[in-house]
Amino acid sequence: MGILIRNADIVTLRKGDEEPFLGDILIDEGRIQEVGGSIDTESHEVINAKGMVALPGLVNAHTHGAMTLLRGYADDLPLNIWLEEKIWPLEEKLTPEDIYWGTMLALAEMIRGGITAFADMYFFMDEAARAVEEVGIRACLCRGLVAAGGGADKSLREADDFVSQWHGGAEGRITAMFGPHAPYTCPPEFLEETVSLAQDQGVGIHIHLGETKKEQEDIKRRYGRTPFEYVSDLGLFEQHVLAAHCVHLEEGDFKILMEAGAYVAHCPQSNLKLASGVAPIPEMVKMGIPVALGTDGAASNNNLDLFEEIRLAGVLHKGVSHDPTLIPARDALEMATIKGVEALGIEGVGPLQVGGRADLILLDFDKPHLAPLHHTIAQITYSAGAADVDTVIVDGKILMEGRELKTMDEALVRRMAQRRMEHLLEPI
Amino acid sequence: MGILIRNADIVTLRKGDEEPFLGDILIDEGRIQEVGGSIDTESHEVINAKGMVALPGLVNAHTHGAMTLLRGYADDLPLNIWLEEKIWPLEEKLTPEDIYWGTMLALAEMIRGGITAFADMYFFMDEAARAVEEVGIRACLCRGLVAAGGGADKSLREADDFVSQWHGGAEGRITAMFGPHAPYTCPPEFLEETVSLAQDQGVGIHIHLGETKKEQEDIKRRYGRTPFEYVSDLGLFEQHVLAAHCVHLEEGDFKILMEAGAYVAHCPQSNLKLASGVAPIPEMVKMGIPVALGTDGAASNNNLDLFEEIRLAGVLHKGVSHDPTLIPARDALEMATIKGVEALGIEGVGPLQVGGRADLILLDFDKPHLAPLHHTIAQITYSAGAADVDTVIVDGKILMEGRELKTMDEALVRRMAQRRMEHLLEPI
Repeated sequence: MGILIRNADIVTLRKGDEEPFLGDILIDEGRIQEVGGSIDTESHEVINAKGMVALPGLVNAHTHGAMTLLRGYADDLPLNIWLEEKIWPLEEKLTPEDIYWGTMLALAEMIRGGITAFADMYFFMDEAARAVEEVGIRACLCRGLVAAGGGADKSLREADDFVSQWHGGAEGRITAMFGPHAPYTCPPEFLEETVSLAQDQGVGIHIHLGETKKEQEDIKRRYGRTPFEYVSDLGLFEQHVLAAHCVHLEEGDFKILMEAGAYVAHCPQSNLKLASGVAPIPEMVKMGIPVALGTDGAASNNNLDLFEEIRLAGVLHKGVSHDPTLIPARDALEMATIKGVEALGIEGVGPLQVGGRADLILLDFDKPHLAPLHHTIAQITYSAGAADVDTVIVDGKILMEGRELKTMDEALVRRMAQRRMEHLLEPI
Repeated sequence: MGILIRNADIVTLRKGDEEPFLGDILIDEGRIQEVGGSIDTESHEVINAKGMVALPGLVNAHTHGAMTLLRGYADDLPLNIWLEEKIWPLEEKLTPEDIYWGTMLALAEMIRGGITAFADMYFFMDEAARAVEEVGIRACLCRGLVAAGGGADKSLREADDFVSQWHGGAEGRITAMFGPHAPYTCPPEFLEETVSLAQDQGVGIHIHLGETKKEQEDIKRRYGRTPFEYVSDLGLFEQHVLAAHCVHLEEGDFKILMEAGAYVAHCPQSNLKLASGVAPIPEMVKMGIPVALGTDGAASNNNLDLFEEIRLAGVLHKGVSHDPTLIPARDALEMATIKGVEALGIEGVGPLQVGGRADLILLDFDKPHLAPLHHTIAQITYSAGAADVDTVIVDGKILMEGRELKTMDEALVRRMAQRRMEHLLEPI
């Protein structure tokens, strides 16, 4: 039995569809079967969407799911102290069970905030994949790879096994990638090896790139080239690339990204909070470099709310570039939806149109902060929030309805996450 | 009958209280009678606050309430086109009835977002005061004053009458101020007259100051001094001053603010969206200039969500100044609470302590994005949102409980606001 969404205000985000229109949406066999008009059928589960806006699901293009366990653990510190004295020591203690419950907590939060797909880079990724499979969300997963510590070969083998096992898994909802952490943690041979494995498997690469000024300076000192030139020279961009952050670029770096057709995961709030800076997004957009949006991990944000990133992408660049026309409302929303899907290498998901996989959300507009209504898309970008999401559908399956999660025991997840966190803090 | 809040995690924000503690809060006759421990009494209305955090109510230190009617009406435009072709023509059509319902909509949104007091500058302010009186929120109100259009004397008389009628009104919940709009709309004699009236009435002054680069340049060209020097030379700072925005300052301007003891209403999101820039808040804080937080009007934000401003104040300055230690979590929260109360010239409200007027809120922490819990204040600043507010109490009276507004008909307000907006858009 399929799903019939009745009387929604539909924002398709299809090219050329400027204004939302009132109508029904028919979903069956995981796909959108009809959009718009009044659909006459009786054999479906009906969702009354009067007063609600339907739009493509949000895509969180860069996060570290299980870092929810470290949410609010350490803030307002210099980057090296935050990493070396706080985050890394705790991460070293993480067990597979922590990753499972931390990821489950991230899924609860993300689904409640209208996210239907996300890109995750972390470790013990089998656990993350298991959570994704159980809960029914869509994901692009990779094991984070660093060459340090002597376990380089082992981690590459694990990453390769992960891709073999999970790429196309969970009924096609999981896309796997390779996840070399960053230029400064991946020396040339290691990165070349990673690229070669990705080529063999025919999958993409998810990497942190150009996040900090220090990375830029260190890589230039070490290799005599920018981080973008460094990874480019090692063949990275011959694969599909999802490059997180991209805050610090020199002129030639823009051209590298553009010619490669690489996707940027812009994480404005994390970049501000960790004092990395403001990514030159308007310049990228002008050159045609595709930009998606990410929250980054909950330790550096401190939540997985993509509405905050949409709004921030919509206002931040106007403010720092002194131009109120930059990144208009629809551009910001597209970054969080259809650009995100492309960035994650997901096929068959996109604007709300017949034949596409049914990943969509309903926003309840019956709220004071969403009234009165002049322009629906501006209202989503500049006024709406995660708590306005009423219903979340992924691959034709309802994950949340009336703000109630349908595919997980939320109270159990919160309790287990709290327990795992307390366990993490115990002295060894 | 008073109110007994049971088992809250209490964030007093009193100097020296670093960690929240679990306990009860007893409220009677509009005041906090006891804080902490287990209070033994039976003759009170009991609120079960298990899993909730109690903290002082949020203060929106700069807005234009009734501009909710223009929310999302025009975005992403150059400032002069936005103002001259969109906002001002619509504002000219506003009637007292529009102001009443637009303000009511703002109150619904603000109370739902945990705001217990706000500073409003607009027109037909009797209507705004009436809404405040009816609904039970606390407010600092002023009629916006511009010298243009020949109605200067009339508007000054109206402003003077408004202060006479409403200062100390609504059982002490209304503080009135004078509201000269900005240096560029108030010539010297007009501003002097305003200051003189404020002195006679013994009330403060709420003004837009240093919002744009253009204002700074125009005032320097016209008067040979900065906007801050200009108003200072006219005696403005002899009164209590609430200065909104303060984005563009020269070195001497900081000293003027500091020596005057003036309060700054920092509106980071509006400043970004309208491309005004980023106010030099860390420099102000370092000099001891008191900073509060404001949303500005809903046409330039586009909501009245102070949690967004808290988070933005907490991350924006770190990012643009490349220093992750700037504006730590507690500072951002204090700007939105105890500094806001002072900025509005409100007495008797402050940290949660015995004897203070009972303006406080309860946040429901039983949410995935607020788990697990390491540090309560960091969680409020960096992770929480308006939708987490469960209960709002002002002057000892419950305005919202369980997310239900108790002192207004929310559905009616939304319906009337939509109707007033449609009326506004009709051709004359």
